[in-house]
Amino acid sequence: MTTSQAVTTIEPIRWRDGALELLDQRLLPAQEIYLSHTDAEAVADAIRAMVVRGAPAIGISAAYGMALAARRLAAQNPADWSAALADAWRVLAQSRPTAVNLFWALEQARAVIAAGGDVPGALEELAIRLHREDVDINRRIGDFGAALIADGSRVYTHCNAGALATGGYGTALGIIRSAHRDGKIAQVFAGETRPWWQGARLTCWELLRENIPVALCTEGAAGATLKNEKVSWIIVGADRVAANGDVANKIGTYNLAVLARYHGARMMVAVPGSTFDLSLDSGADIPIEQRSPREITHVGEQELAPAGCPAINPAFDVTPAELIDVIVTEFGVIENPDRDRIAAHFANAGKA
Amino acid sequence: MTTSQAVTTIEPIRWRDGALELLDQRLLPAQEIYLSHTDAEAVADAIRAMVVRGAPAIGISAAYGMALAARRLAAQNPADWSAALADAWRVLAQSRPTAVNLFWALEQARAVIAAGGDVPGALEELAIRLHREDVDINRRIGDFGAALIADGSRVYTHCNAGALATGGYGTALGIIRSAHRDGKIAQVFAGETRPWWQGARLTCWELLRENIPVALCTEGAAGATLKNEKVSWIIVGADRVAANGDVANKIGTYNLAVLARYHGARMMVAVPGSTFDLSLDSGADIPIEQRSPREITHVGEQELAPAGCPAINPAFDVTPAELIDVIVTEFGVIENPDRDRIAAHFANAGKA
Repeated sequence: MTTSQAVTTIEPIRWRDGALELLDQRLLPAQEIYLSHTDAEAVADAIRAMVVRGAPAIGISAAYGMALAARRLAAQNPADWSAALADAWRVLAQSRPTAVNLFWALEQARAVIAAGGDVPGALEELAIRLHREDVDINRRIGDFGAALIADGSRVYTHCNAGALATGGYGTALGIIRSAHRDGKIAQVFAGETRPWWQGARLTCWELLRENIPVALCTEGAAGATLKNEKVSWIIVGADRVAANGDVANKIGTYNLAVLARYHGARMMVAVPGSTFDLSLDSGADIPIEQRSPREITHVGEQELAPAGCPAINPAFDVTPAELIDVIVTEFGVIENPDRDRIAAHFANAGKA
Repeated sequence: MTTSQAVTTIEPIRWRDGALELLDQRLLPAQEIYLSHTDAEAVADAIRAMVVRGAPAIGISAAYGMALAARRLAAQNPADWSAALADAWRVLAQSRPTAVNLFWALEQARAVIAAGGDVPGALEELAIRLHREDVDINRRIGDFGAALIADGSRVYTHCNAGALATGGYGTALGIIRSAHRDGKIAQVFAGETRPWWQGARLTCWELLRENIPVALCTEGAAGATLKNEKVSWIIVGADRVAANGDVANKIGTYNLAVLARYHGARMMVAVPGSTFDLSLDSGADIPIEQRSPREITHVGEQELAPAGCPAINPAFDVTPAELIDVIVTEFGVIENPDRDRIAAHFANAGKA
């Protein structure tokens, strides 16, 4: 395997002059605007409002949110800021329920707080370290995944598991970046991903910036595309993976896994180890965020559906492990993932 | 089977004072505006622009378009209007390629023209007759289909195969209307249907008007909905059915058929006999309309995808007969449709 030399200049998250700058992903691709955040509540609001999204990016942002909270609270009330810091922690923990990276990052922040000492400094160090490590992790995922892809491949991706969803480089798009660097990608198809259009707005934007051939399609066109375009891999990220290999990811992923199986395409899930939640027996235990019906009854201020139309708007679905061919982490590849293979993967990685 | 007593007041097509009034389906549900058309070119433009859509409604509109052309041309140039009438015929035939009802209606208009006599009067009679018959056909389809549905059923539909897609009452929604009248429908799920949102804009509007319980969802949520909501039937219309039972319908239908098979739901296709094209051996021969990429790169004037983003936008897909459990026509039900059963169905119906 070659070492990744591919570079992306996309920075969804910046730590500048003690403020967390988040590229407002709601405005892409029309506008590239960074919003600056200086307290934990504002970071939680940004996560909830999807200024920043993607499981790894949410985790990193939450870590910075804790650093911001500690610095501010320590300055305000040096004698008794630990209770208020716990409040900030809870606000961040309640921002979005499905991506486990949020809780993974917050657990590390909790350990730093418990260790005492220069807590504000240590929380800032933690956030910067998680941010840097995530980019390295993505590059390793990218190279492990790219090694599975044959020359001239046509691949399909959903939502955005790219640089924008992570510290940089991306998980699913990291694999596509590495495979493209290695000359293996003939065509990427990107599903538009309703209701937020992350495929259209974010994935196409990332890939076109780096001259990776991409074609946008509606999610309805996925079946016809798999059939007519000889797609060999569907490559997606995830928000939480249970101990048995069931995967929660953006709504629509499960459809793609069923379609892949029917068409003989293979299903690849790209995640950092931090996206596994080994405390959960199966995908049935993963909390699925239900978002506002308004996200699908309206587009902007325009009504699509009749006033008062009932709607269901789950943000994620669960794909059972038996429909997943490989999960790629920074430690390597889990083929035909199941409980035992996942346990062995992390045991070998020294994580267990 | 009870005779249908359900009534819908939705009139997508009106023939008033010698003009064709079409309810502008691009503006629903926000505005209910009829556009008046007095020549064939305007009717063809309305079909192309999707003022009117749905295979049966397109066929009826084209028949009225021929009536309008004949009257206008006969008035302008009584000596030699047959060549100009052939031009009008071609303009209508080129409006949209996939729905075979368009060509079916135009073939009947051609026969009327060939028969001579009062051609303008005969073409008007033809259009009015096809329009009236379509509503009766839909009611028969509705009752045949409803008989297949168990009490308390939860069903899923795609796009709009309703009153708006036909002369009135609807094919797939005709079945849902009849089944609801019979107390059998616990819940309808309507996929929003990108890129034109016929599910959100049209199907939800029709069903809410008649107090039929409907919940809107994105197409990405179809798999999770089939799994979690115990959907027993997917019920859709079609734009063309080949002799072997392969079905062209709105893009996304094929996904649903694959998902239905995986989940043990059944797939029902509701069409008038005029939607069959027995001259085509299989779905591979059905022309699939490719529409402008702009329909998916933009929403209104707003750019969703980066400028210049490549996109594929097929308006229809083909579902193979082996994924279809029943096709319902005005003559009855074809279970497990294949070439022989379809031939027998029409032989028994006296169509052959």
